[in-house]
Amino acid sequence: MAKALVVGSVALDSVETPHGNVSAALGGSASYASVAASYFTDVSMVGVVGKDFDPGHIEKFRSRRINMDGLQIVEGKTFHWSGYYQREMNQAHTNTTELNVFADFRPKLTDAQREMPFVFLANIHPALQLDVLNQVRNPKLVAIDTMNFWIEGQKQLLTEVIKRCDILLVNEGESRQYCEKVNLIECGRELLNLGPKTVVMKKGEHGAVLFQKDRMIFFPAFPLDKLKDPTGAGDTFAGALVGYLARLNEVNDDNLVRAVHIGTCMASFVVEDFSLDRILKVEKDELLSRVHTVRQMVQLPDIEHKSVEDHGKP
Amino acid sequence: MAKALVVGSVALDSVETPHGNVSAALGGSASYASVAASYFTDVSMVGVVGKDFDPGHIEKFRSRRINMDGLQIVEGKTFHWSGYYQREMNQAHTNTTELNVFADFRPKLTDAQREMPFVFLANIHPALQLDVLNQVRNPKLVAIDTMNFWIEGQKQLLTEVIKRCDILLVNEGESRQYCEKVNLIECGRELLNLGPKTVVMKKGEHGAVLFQKDRMIFFPAFPLDKLKDPTGAGDTFAGALVGYLARLNEVNDDNLVRAVHIGTCMASFVVEDFSLDRILKVEKDELLSRVHTVRQMVQLPDIEHKSVEDHGKP
Repeated sequence: MAKALVVGSVALDSVETPHGNVSAALGGSASYASVAASYFTDVSMVGVVGKDFDPGHIEKFRSRRINMDGLQIVEGKTFHWSGYYQREMNQAHTNTTELNVFADFRPKLTDAQREMPFVFLANIHPALQLDVLNQVRNPKLVAIDTMNFWIEGQKQLLTEVIKRCDILLVNEGESRQYCEKVNLIECGRELLNLGPKTVVMKKGEHGAVLFQKDRMIFFPAFPLDKLKDPTGAGDTFAGALVGYLARLNEVNDDNLVRAVHIGTCMASFVVEDFSLDRILKVEKDELLSRVHTVRQMVQLPDIEHKSVEDHGKP
Repeated sequence: MAKALVVGSVALDSVETPHGNVSAALGGSASYASVAASYFTDVSMVGVVGKDFDPGHIEKFRSRRINMDGLQIVEGKTFHWSGYYQREMNQAHTNTTELNVFADFRPKLTDAQREMPFVFLANIHPALQLDVLNQVRNPKLVAIDTMNFWIEGQKQLLTEVIKRCDILLVNEGESRQYCEKVNLIECGRELLNLGPKTVVMKKGEHGAVLFQKDRMIFFPAFPLDKLKDPTGAGDTFAGALVGYLARLNEVNDDNLVRAVHIGTCMASFVVEDFSLDRILKVEKDELLSRVHTVRQMVQLPDIEHKSVEDHGKP
């Protein structure tokens, strides 16, 4: 088992979905990712909050044995996002984004953090992601996530980050936006060509695809008929993926597939409730049950060669 | 091996996509489905065309050993559809639909056709589908397809057809439209509750899902980076699925999965060119190669139970 470093945002989210709403609930990319990763390995979180941040939230992370020494608590208010999802819940709509203390965030790693072998740079300004990449020392694996906002406004900086990571996590829309192409297979290949050995494309209800130079692996989403709030699904997916790889502590072809499989299943929990409510209490047996279900969904029996002889051949 | 009956439209299509266009090219749901099915078993096609229909087209079907005795050739013009696909090619837009001789089509099965054990009712008016269902005698399997137009205008009749089929083929949009629900898992279950033992949901680039009471199986689409024309993909998928089941001549759980797997792969050929150009010349080895690729895309290595012990458990 190896340690994992998670750098990203810690936020208070006000979210409305067709199934309810929460006000100033715990959120942020580092929050979801750290909790998801904590199921598998030792996690250190790096982020920033304001003095208004409820110490009870910090206790939630500590209850998951997450090392919180990297959480800066500074004068001012915590990052606050307010948004909503419409009926299809496939896209977040923003009401307001108040960066507050996050505007001046400069991640500073301790010596111990700089040595951590598994690094997840969750969705934050690519300049900050680069800053962290310049501080870590020879990590075994760097995974990064991003969002449409940075593709639109910071594409060049983001491209620098992508070139330096091992695993790029993107969703369908971000892939198309970055590559300016419609076809997702083309997008996957183009993103690989930038440098990462692995691109993992998240497609919500349609699952995920792992792209590497010589293979593509396809993962169904765990079938859920009730989703309450999609916030944090991508971060949870990524955190579990990196945390699980850190647990296995060997990055090879099979382990990468396993890690995406685990990420898929963990993400299926977080959307069942608002904020981190559900992801804070995932039991081993329910996780294993979802791992099993997803596997069963892609069991294809053999097809005999002679059964595809062309019957109608002229 | 058992015989398959395919009832549907034979059309001339004028199609424009971002990759080119064709004018009055051979098309129609029965055309695509029959050719796809002909790779696997004896196929009889039932449809109607006008006197303007190029006899060369009929020769194309005959070259695939499709029995064309059920093709009525009547006074008037052949059904003509004109439409286009925009950049994303995920939705057909109609310019004009000229039903012509198709407006008065009444499928009349011969005694031999009424005895055929595998029946595919491709996308036509549900009243005609019911008419055929009333003519066939105790088929082993009935699969049906439909489209948004009939869900909108003939939902009650269509529901009668769905209740009487074994396999319902629908795409994402049609599922949501019929069920008036967003969540595809809910849609799949609701459609199953109408009566079919199997619902196969086609999701284009996102693959397909087989729903049954006690299981869901997920199929990736064969990864294509160049699509020329999506017309006929669903019909090809369905025709191959039914034709392959007829070839195996036993409808069981494993064979259903195999048939969807084959349908997925055959559909990946038809979209590589306009009209039936590509689907008329699929080689056994290229089909097997795609079957293999799709299988490789869902090979998930085992996950050890102890690797998901909760590390962060309080």
